Parts: sequence; structure tokens; C-alpha cells
Amino acid sequence: MTLPTTLSAPLAHTPVLDHGFLELWNMLGADQTIAASARVSLSRELASLTDHTDKQAERDRGLINRLMRDRHTSPFESVVFQWRVRAPIFVARQWFRHRFSSFNEESGRYVELQDEFYVPDQLRVRVGKAMDYQYVDMEAEQNAQFRARIEALYHDARTLYEGMLAAGVAREHARIVLPVAQYTTFIWTVNALSLMNFLHLRNSPHAQAEIRAYAEVMEAVFAERLPWTHAAFREHWGAGAV
Amino acid sequence: MTLPTTLSAPLAHTPVLDHGFLELWNMLGADQTIAASARVSLSRELASLTDHTDKQAERDRGLINRLMRDRHTSPFESVVFQWRVRAPIFVARQWFRHRFSSFNEESGRYVELQDEFYVPDQLRVRVGKAMDYQYVDMEAEQNAQFRARIEALYHDARTLYEGMLAAGVAREHARIVLPVAQYTTFIWTVNALSLMNFLHLRNSPHAQAEIRAYAEVMEAVFAERLPWTHAAFREHWGAGAV
Amino acid sequence: MTLPTTLSAPLAHTPVLDHGFLELWNMLGADQTIAASARVSLSRELASLTDHTDKQAERDRGLINRLMRDRHTSPFESVVFQWRVRAPIFVARQWFRHRFSSFNEESGRYVELQDEFYVPDQLRVRVGKAMDYQYVDMEAEQNAQFRARIEALYHDARTLYEGMLAAGVAREHARIVLPVAQYTTFIWTVNALSLMNFLHLRNSPHAQAEIRAYAEVMEAVFAERLPWTHAAFREHWGAGAV
Amino acid sequence: MTLPTTLSAPLAHTPVLDHGFLELWNMLGADQTIAASARVSLSRELASLTDHTDKQAERDRGLINRLMRDRHTSPFESVVFQWRVRAPIFVARQWFRHRFSSFNEESGRYVELQDEFYVPDQLRVRVGKAMDYQYVDMEAEQNAQFRARIEALYHDARTLYEGMLAAGVAREHARIVLPVAQYTTFIWTVNALSLMNFLHLRNSPHAQAEIRAYAEVMEAVFAERLPWTHAAFREHWGAGAV
Repeated sequence: MTLPTTLSAPLAHTPVLDHGFLELWNMLGADQTIAASARVSLSRELASLTDHTDKQAERDRGLINRLMRDRHTSPFESVVFQWRVRAPIFVARQWFRHRFSSFNEESGRYVELQDEFYVPDQLRVRVGKAMDYQYVDMEAEQNAQFRARIEALYHDARTLYEGMLAAGVAREHARIVLPVAQYTTFIWTVNALSLMNFLHLRNSPHAQAEIRAYAEVMEAVFAERLPWTHAAFREHWGAGAV
Repeated sequence: MTLPTTLSAPLAHTPVLDHGFLELWNMLGADQTIAASARVSLSRELASLTDHTDKQAERDRGLINRLMRDRHTSPFESVVFQWRVRAPIFVARQWFRHRFSSFNEESGRYVELQDEFYVPDQLRVRVGKAMDYQYVDMEAEQNAQFRARIEALYHDARTLYEGMLAAGVAREHARIVLPVAQYTTFIWTVNALSLMNFLHLRNSPHAQAEIRAYAEVMEAVFAERLPWTHAAFREHWGAGAV
Repeated sequence: MTLPTTLSAPLAHTPVLDHGFLELWNMLGADQTIAASARVSLSRELASLTDHTDKQAERDRGLINRLMRDRHTSPFESVVFQWRVRAPIFVARQWFRHRFSSFNEESGRYVELQDEFYVPDQLRVRVGKAMDYQYVDMEAEQNAQFRARIEALYHDARTLYEGMLAAGVAREHARIVLPVAQYTTFIWTVNALSLMNFLHLRNSPHAQAEIRAYAEVMEAVFAERLPWTHAAFREHWGAGAV
Repeated sequence: MTLPTTLSAPLAHTPVLDHGFLELWNMLGADQTIAASARVSLSRELASLTDHTDKQAERDRGLINRLMRDRHTSPFESVVFQWRVRAPIFVARQWFRHRFSSFNEESGRYVELQDEFYVPDQLRVRVGKAMDYQYVDMEAEQNAQFRARIEALYHDARTLYEGMLAAGVAREHARIVLPVAQYTTFIWTVNALSLMNFLHLRNSPHAQAEIRAYAEVMEAVFAERLPWTHAAFREHWGAGAV
């Protein structure tokens, strides 16, 4: 049996935030897979897979656009992305709400977590009223002071964590003192439809900036890998289409 | 329109851990619903719902037992439980992995979290080798010392959190320093099949003791509300049946 | 244990097509449940459940409208409908594509199916080009002729089915000659979010008229049971919101 | 962009029943992907992907066996199979109950269905009591007579279907007279965990023989593609493990 070659080197790797990254680990299919899946519904010849002419490409691109416009979403489930992600726990918590996908996460019960925590470069301050506020950057000196206090707290939490491990405390017990800024790693296996739903919600001004940083990188990779689908996504999704 | 009366008072409320609780908020159906759903498959009269005799009860109990034994699981999806849970974030993280159910959680982006953290009464210490270890209680004096250090750390995290909020830092930013022992609240809507899967995995010696504390309470409520299903669950599930 | 009283009589029952029906069998929650679930996210007092004043109702109605508008969909999963449906197999086949819900269907393997088939009152004829066609009613005399041929075919299929059963053929084998117009019965347990997705796709000019007949009835029941949610659904869904 | 080469020729193609087939269209990952995903949970080096020695293979095989035994199921969701299936509608109906997967099916609303129906070589006859029956082959002459009647009925249904199409009846209306033995084609995208659940239920003496014919072929392909996972599946699943 041949080992899938894409596994030994990720298809894409991009640093995100201060200690995180997003990595395309593996992938099933391409724009043509989506077109071919849709043509199964139409019982037509699956020329998408064997006809590599510009004319066929034009037909496939048009078909994908119409599928998106008319909400025929199931063909978009025929392409699967597999990502390896390193992100703070508070970001992972938002991510894991996306249920139609699969997760394999580093376990604080079984391993000692690495000494990596997220410290924002620039704290955001809310200005304005409860239902109509905005975020602006904190003034530089105060920002530096708070960053120092955050780092000191993380250091104390880490010291206590390591102290408990050294005293033999079960890892699952010791880790409860670590902050939600602690980094964690997970594999995310997700089809293109579920991924577009993620991008729609998370690469958005309503999302927290930290998860949006991941969603932006992800959307760039998505656009590179499924250019026709991405174009249709940006034309129709959220514009009443899906 | 009548307001469902079960909403104004939970059907059951039990404290769990130092600041948590488990509350049965609402419920759809009963053992008879499961029997009736199975009888739809068999096109038989749905006597389960109208015939309240002992004889019919005996038939329903037997049917439920056979469904469980033979892995006919879909009728168990016809009963739905709705729980309100208050638990530490690290427990919620394990809980949210159960994807075939619905969650509504308190948001650290939108509200100031309450000053409640989990402190174990008794730290557990690992003894034994990597693949064959056991947990024993930490010796009393050392346990008291670590508990004091944990509480001090929580106090420092809380002070920094409140300091940031007072300085106008966005809630979603300020909360990143809080430990995973911070309590959170969520509503969990789950059908009986998915709930049995949860109980099988979490009310188990392999589960972390903290989530198991919730699962034990939940199983007791489940046994009270669906006695025939619970008996069949304990007889067949995990014994090769499902 | 009290038997849930809603089970002995369905909350609503409406005939659909020539031999079908749609029945609201049971229900968990109300508009107030959705408002209360959303307020859990906001850690606010759950006044929705206990304060029955007009002022609170106005607050809840406004909250539900904003949730829908801003795509905060999870609170809509906290209400669950349970339907009993009798529909032709070709309609059930479209229905069962809605995966985030639960089904219990009559089994042609275990029971003899009833002698009920769908015959359209009025056949539809396509006029126009492949991508731009319309449906019009077939002319009356030809329509009557085809209806007679359809009924004759069903009669032949039924005769063969019963002939095989009489000869001892396994039910699961005998039923393979029955047409997809054969009626079947199923229980459908579905939360309000998934139900709105169904209504959006099936109570639509793009849906086949037969499944739309069910979706129209369902939407009327939905509007009666969750009036605030229904109003928000029709204002925002499909208009770019969700 | 490179077109995935696996698409132009399926990885496996096997005829099933009289006009059906099962085809492995594409695949994401291998046994090593499962081992690597599990090692992410353990924060260990992902040697599975780069170390091709026998020693590493032995470690991976052992890890996979322990994952299956201890019900750590999530790593098995990191491998995805994509099948193209042609099967009778009554088989497809059983298949589509498996909700944690994706389907793209030929549409009887949009295309004219091909003239292919399933005729059993050998009808099965039930002998024995209601709860304790067995199936035996129908006696040859009677079997031939019923086969002829079945084929005649299919021919009549097809003639009426084509007659309605010729008269301009909408395809979605005309197809309602076709029997559930009509063949249909679909793409099925499914992860290895969900696939094992399918195999457990459908490659079983409790399953109808026709769907079991597909499940047997599928299990053979599965065993070839994921040999370590398959061995662990047969050792532990259904023996109380999962």
C-alpha cells in the first residue's frame, strides 16, 4: 500500500497569532469533484473528470455558480479539507461549535501541555453604548502595562501547573489552573459546505478578531484550492442565497 | 397561547461540584413515546399512548428491551431532554464534543463572567507506570497547600480580569486570562439515544471524575424519567449491543 | 409516573394529498424557550419563563427578531417539534435528506404495507425550454385517461404484491414491485432551526408541489405555535440573514 | 492547479446485483492518518507520516487496535471514503438513513431515469413463526413464474412512464409510477467511523440480503485500504467495544 504522499509535508502552513498556525494537511477533491457530483444528480456524463479542455472548465465553472445561487448545496459536501490548527483554547471553543465536521484535539488529560499562551499585541477597548459600541486600540503605555501583567499571570499559572505535575498531581487535575489563552492543537476534517459556513460566520466583522485571523488565512487557501467554488461563494452566500 | 408550565420550575435541580448544578429544564416524551415510535415502524396500533393498563405496560417494556438488544436505535431519538448545566469550562469542553445535540452557552464575549472557579476538594495523584497508573488522594497537608495556591491564582486572574474590564478592555479580550476552571452555564437539548451515548462514555471509570459527577446525577434523573429504557440500557449497552 | 397527556391526542391533524396527513404529535417549548435560551448566553435573568406581562413579551419578541437577523441560530434549536406524517415514498425520500433530525418509519420489511397510492388529481405538463420551463395543467380528457392508467398499474402492482405475500414471499422481497407513490408513515422529531431550513427549501416554488403541500400545512402550524419566531423567520431568512 | 488523478479512474469498481455497482471514487488518508490523528491528541511526534520502517508500522498498528478497543473513536473520522453507488431505490432508502455522511443522488425530477430494475434471481420465502422465522429459496418453477410477472409489471410501469414523458408530463410526476426496484445512482462521502457503523449494521445477517451484497464488497475494499483499522474493527466492534 502506498502512503499518501501529501501527509509527509503539509500542503500549506501559515503562522497565525503569536504562537499558532494553520496547516492544510490533506485534501479530497477539487472544483471538478463538485461539478462531477452535481452531474451525478443529472445523470450526465462525468466529463468534468476526464475532459481537461477550457470549454469543459467553462461549463464546470458555470455549473458551480448556479449550484451556489440556487442553494443546491449537497455537491459541495463532496470535497473535504483536513487542517492541523494550533490556537488558544478560547478560539478552539468557538471552533468546536461547528458540529458537522470532525475534531482530534491534544488532550490535557494525557499529555503535559506546552508552555505557550496568547498575549494580544494590542488590547481592544470598547467605546460607545451597550448595543452600539466600537473597539479602538488601548493607549500604548497602558497597553504595555497590561501586557506585562498578563504575562506575569501566565507565568504564575504555568509555575503552579508545573509544580503540581512535579508533585505527581494527575495532569487532568493540574491543567485546570491554565488560562483559556493556553494554546492547543487539533486536526479538523471538514467538507467544503461546512467550511463555507465557518468562513461566513468567522471571517466576518462580527467574529472575534482572533478566530477571524485563522478564518482569513483559511479563506485564502480555500480560494487557491477551489477557485471556482470560492468565487461563487463570495458572489452568492450571505446575499440571500444560502 | 399557553406558556409551557414546566418552564417556570425545573423538573429537577441538583448541585454538582463546588459551584455547579444540573437541572432538568424540560422534557419531550416518555417510555411510551419510544414504544409508540417503534410501533409506527410496525404499523401497529399505537396503544402505548392510550391504553394505560398493566398489560400494555408489560408489552411496552418488553418491546423497549428488544429494541435495545437488537440495536434498533431510532425510536430512542423520539424522546428529548433539555438540561441547564453549570460546570467548569474544562468540563464543558468535554461535553461539547457530543455533536448530535444542541448547546446554548453563556458568552464571555457579551457578558461579565461570574466570580466562580472550581477548586477540587481533594487533588488526585498518579501512581504507577504510564500505561498502568492509578489515582490516589494527595496527602492532606500538601493538598491544603496546593488548594491555597490554586485559590490565590484564581484570585489574581479575577483581579486582572476585573482590572481590564474597569479599564474598558473588551470583555472578549479580558476573559482570556481566566482559567479553564471558570464556571460557565449552558442549555443542552439532547435526545435519549445521544444521551445514552454520553452516559456510556462519561458515567464510566475512564471519564474524568468531574464530568462523571454530572453524568451520575444525569443517569439518576434519566432512570427516574425513562425507567424501562434505562433498565434496557444497563442490560444491553456496552455488552455488545450498541 | 404521569403519562404525557399530549400523546393521547395529537395537537393538530390535517389531511394532505389523497391519502396523507400531517399531525403535530408533541412539542417541547415555545417562543419563550428560545428567548430564555438566548438569555442564558447573556447570563441574564430568565424572566421569559416567569414574567407573563406584555412588557416582557415585547422584550422577548424583539430579542427573537434580533437573533434571527444576526444569525444567532443556536437558541432556535431549543424548541423541538414531533410530527407524524403519512406521505408517498417519493415525498418521504426528499424529506429524509434533512439529516439534522430523527426519523422512525414504517418498515416494508416487517409489515404488510397498506393499499394506498398517490394519484395526482391533475398531471402537470412541462412547457418551454430546458432551463426556462413552466408547468401547466394537462388537458382534462387526457388527464383522466392517464389517471385511469396510473390506477390500473397500481392495481396490478398491488395484486402482484399480495400474490407474492400469499405465496409466502418475504415481505422485504415482495414490496420491491410497489411504486414510489406507495404511502408510508413516519415520525419526525426536529428542532425549530432545522424545521425552518426545511420550510425555506420545501415551502418554495422550487420544491415539488407534493412535498410543498406538506410544508404549507407545517408552516401554518409552526406560525401558530411559535408566532414570534415565525414572524422573524419570514422577515429575515432567505433575505441574506441565514 | 493539478486535477486529482484519482478522479479519472475509480480506485475500485465491482458489479453488485443485476444492474448495480460499487465504486471507490476517491479517498482521503490511510491507516497512518488515523495513527497520526491520535498522536495529535497525545502531542507526540507524528512519525506515522514520515517514518516508514517496520517498527513504526508495528507501533501504529498497536495504537489503532487500542483506540478501537477503548472506544477512542474520533481518530477514525480523519479518513474519508468517497463511493459511487448504483442500487435499487429500496436499497438506497436504507442507505440514506446513515446521516453522518453526505449524499449526491441522481434526480428523478431533473432527468429521465434509465430503464433498469432489480429482479431477484431467487425469491426468498418465509418459513416459521412471527418472531422466529427463516428464509428459504422458493421452489424453481414458481420462482420463474413470479420473476416473469415481476418483469412484466416493470415493463408496464416503464411503458406508462415513457408514455407520460412523451405526452409532456413533468418528469417529477411521471416517475411516481416506477417501482422501488428502479435503479438510482449516488455519490456517498463518508468517514471511516461512520462507514464502520454502516458495515456493522448492513454486513450482518439482520440486514436485507440486497444491501448486504453492497456492504460485503465495501468491507473487502475497506479491508484492503485500511488493513490495520479493519483488523481492529473485526476484533473489537460489536464485542462490547463501540
